[in-house]
Amino acid sequence: MTDTILKKLQSIFGSEETFTDRETLTAYSYDAAHTEMLPEVIVFAKNEAQISALMKLANEERIPVTPRGAGSGLSGGSVPLSKGIVVCLDKMKAIKSIDTVNRLITLEAGVITSDIDAAVNPKGLFFPPDPGSTLFSTIGGNVAENAGGLRGLKYGVTKDYVKTIRVVLPSGEAVTLGAKTVKHVAGFNVEQLFVGSEGLLGIFTEFTLSLLPLPEHRESALAVYASLDDAAKTVAAIIEAGVTPSTLEIMDRFTINAIEDYKPCGLPRDAEAVLIIETDGYRESAIREMEKVQTVAAKHAVTRFVRAKDAAEREMLFEGRRVSLSALARVKPTTILEDATVMRSRVPDLVRAIQSIAKKYDLMVGTFGHAGDGNLHPTFLVDKNDKDMMHRCEMAVKELFAATIAMEGTISGEHGIGIEKKPFLKDQLGDAGVKLLRDIKKTLDPNGILNPGKMF
Amino acid sequence: MTDTILKKLQSIFGSEETFTDRETLTAYSYDAAHTEMLPEVIVFAKNEAQISALMKLANEERIPVTPRGAGSGLSGGSVPLSKGIVVCLDKMKAIKSIDTVNRLITLEAGVITSDIDAAVNPKGLFFPPDPGSTLFSTIGGNVAENAGGLRGLKYGVTKDYVKTIRVVLPSGEAVTLGAKTVKHVAGFNVEQLFVGSEGLLGIFTEFTLSLLPLPEHRESALAVYASLDDAAKTVAAIIEAGVTPSTLEIMDRFTINAIEDYKPCGLPRDAEAVLIIETDGYRESAIREMEKVQTVAAKHAVTRFVRAKDAAEREMLFEGRRVSLSALARVKPTTILEDATVMRSRVPDLVRAIQSIAKKYDLMVGTFGHAGDGNLHPTFLVDKNDKDMMHRCEMAVKELFAATIAMEGTISGEHGIGIEKKPFLKDQLGDAGVKLLRDIKKTLDPNGILNPGKMF
Repeated sequence: MTDTILKKLQSIFGSEETFTDRETLTAYSYDAAHTEMLPEVIVFAKNEAQISALMKLANEERIPVTPRGAGSGLSGGSVPLSKGIVVCLDKMKAIKSIDTVNRLITLEAGVITSDIDAAVNPKGLFFPPDPGSTLFSTIGGNVAENAGGLRGLKYGVTKDYVKTIRVVLPSGEAVTLGAKTVKHVAGFNVEQLFVGSEGLLGIFTEFTLSLLPLPEHRESALAVYASLDDAAKTVAAIIEAGVTPSTLEIMDRFTINAIEDYKPCGLPRDAEAVLIIETDGYRESAIREMEKVQTVAAKHAVTRFVRAKDAAEREMLFEGRRVSLSALARVKPTTILEDATVMRSRVPDLVRAIQSIAKKYDLMVGTFGHAGDGNLHPTFLVDKNDKDMMHRCEMAVKELFAATIAMEGTISGEHGIGIEKKPFLKDQLGDAGVKLLRDIKKTLDPNGILNPGKMF
Repeated sequence: MTDTILKKLQSIFGSEETFTDRETLTAYSYDAAHTEMLPEVIVFAKNEAQISALMKLANEERIPVTPRGAGSGLSGGSVPLSKGIVVCLDKMKAIKSIDTVNRLITLEAGVITSDIDAAVNPKGLFFPPDPGSTLFSTIGGNVAENAGGLRGLKYGVTKDYVKTIRVVLPSGEAVTLGAKTVKHVAGFNVEQLFVGSEGLLGIFTEFTLSLLPLPEHRESALAVYASLDDAAKTVAAIIEAGVTPSTLEIMDRFTINAIEDYKPCGLPRDAEAVLIIETDGYRESAIREMEKVQTVAAKHAVTRFVRAKDAAEREMLFEGRRVSLSALARVKPTTILEDATVMRSRVPDLVRAIQSIAKKYDLMVGTFGHAGDGNLHPTFLVDKNDKDMMHRCEMAVKELFAATIAMEGTISGEHGIGIEKKPFLKDQLGDAGVKLLRDIKKTLDPNGILNPGKMF
């Protein structure tokens, strides 16, 4: 990074928003995955014009640029793998408008995801995608990773709520993709190509997102099982019975006990597995759906089915689920969190595969996740200083992904490819599939300056 | 088309599925839009390998290929504008599997859309997208056009139900895009780029689509208005009240009377407008939603609100809506059907714009459509032999699209760009937006052999 380039960056972003000191560079060298790389410069953007100017400069000088929100991503998407410039958008956090008639919100990319609900809940609306990072992740990052969450099986994921994207292309040109209307078929569905593009195709500055009316009522319950397999089988049976809960989470004995050690939430330590279930909608429908769920559970060897009596009881259930990753992360120095995803009918097979692979490689594993959409989070608890253990873990992950693909599943349900799953993408998509992605990337970013080294 | 090429086509498709006679060529020279062009050859595909071989041949010989399903498209997507070869997929109509646990159907591209419901309704499932052409359109065409329908506001459109696409790329290579899982973020969201690509990016051979459980109950009603404006205002007010009907259609006086002339359905000839409304879900919810709708309508000067008492009454209401286009098409020799779409809050403005533009250009217009998702079908009734009238109609359409774009709407909600709306795409997307589409097209189809001359 020459002084000339640094001066140009300072003139674009202001010297007060341009950093090269070791401390700041270090703070922006990692995200919630496992790779670190020091960038050469960090700049904080305040508007689209700055980002356009940055991309033009970066193209001229062939400098890699990595966009970043809160750095809460789990696949390394915001790590500046090729050094260069990190452009941070977390200061672009204006909510520009809330439209209750059309159920839309227009906002900048740096808005923290949970701030959307804080702004729209009082108006009777909500933003359904709720990744675990919602309290600190930015909506820009969520769109770039197509973030999921606990309500995916009923409400879908981030992509289902993106109406328009304002994006600075790698060339520096800014375009608006999509439309604010419910339906829009003018041109290719290119806005959806950009959702989940992991910072490889453009830098998002603004979105219009759709919202839904808050459901009138929620019913929550805990189903307790003496066998992980029975819990997993119940998941598919609930869906087959025509019920679509708003949440349908699974946790195994290991995870339950890690949670109770970390933050007691009243979960049954002796259970082999639990399901946390929520139905919502009109009061009568939510209740009827929960009754159907209970009936299905009873047919699948549930040992206890506890309906939350009030908000406090529900809150305690969900708190357990929310802290599960933190609780597991305390057990060992290193946490390898995966998000293998299969069709719901295959959840029992995936659960069995996780157990047998962990046993084969003598690894500690806690399994929890969004069973209702087939998206599990097997979490290997290891120690990165133990080379033999790390090697066994690598083998286990490889075997897990092979098993997932063999079940017609996907190596990533919601965390993205980034750095972490790059070696496995070809197994998922095949050579022709990866070539298609590469071709698209090359078309939009011929100099390969935007977030290089990721995905493929 | 040389004899050598024809022989090669015959060896790929069999001489019994390769046609060059004038009669067959004529039958495949048009769709439900307004442009005709004779192809040089028609071939009927039976499998993917044939289509791959076709694309390789077409690339070598630089012959345009236009894929076609039932030819029910309304924007000219399947018209062979550059002559060459039409490849028809309507003989690839196998339903390969129905998976009730995962709510999925896997089927070939030539399956007729309504055959999906016929196959899955008995299993308690349904396929929500229901374009007007559902009884004869193919699912391949629906995916290529991202078809909409009457249930879009609650259930979304075709793109929301596409899990995987098997596609033969312009190069002849076949790939599977997407995954059967509920969530999938491995690689760019490229399956969604192909939905609505209007036959420009690849030829679809097979899909896995998601299904939903059939709702337990439906409530239907007719709301009658003495003013079109009041009907339009009711639409936005219903949504703002937090209700999402499964159907919310509008019809103006002109359309109502055309229907009653064509096929009496008991619609009120003296009304200025009607809304046809359906709510669905659990019995109690559907009833409560309809009650909310009725309350909102009462606040917006509804003159009568008639709830359908049984299936026969509901059927009659929907029959009126279904025949509206046919009814209007009888009035004059030529029907110019548009699908301008705005946010729901702007439906009253769009309705007023349609009326005033029709008046300004002295044109007959009937307006009906999916008001609940802001998607109207203003239908100009003209005579293609009257040059002055056609010129006035052209001016009117131009003005209508300008008004739609000025309202942040879209020139096409569900019919696509094809040939018909090509001149307006730039107004919608801007130069940079169109360039992005062109770049993607060029990357995938460098020789420009697949459905050339369309969209941009």
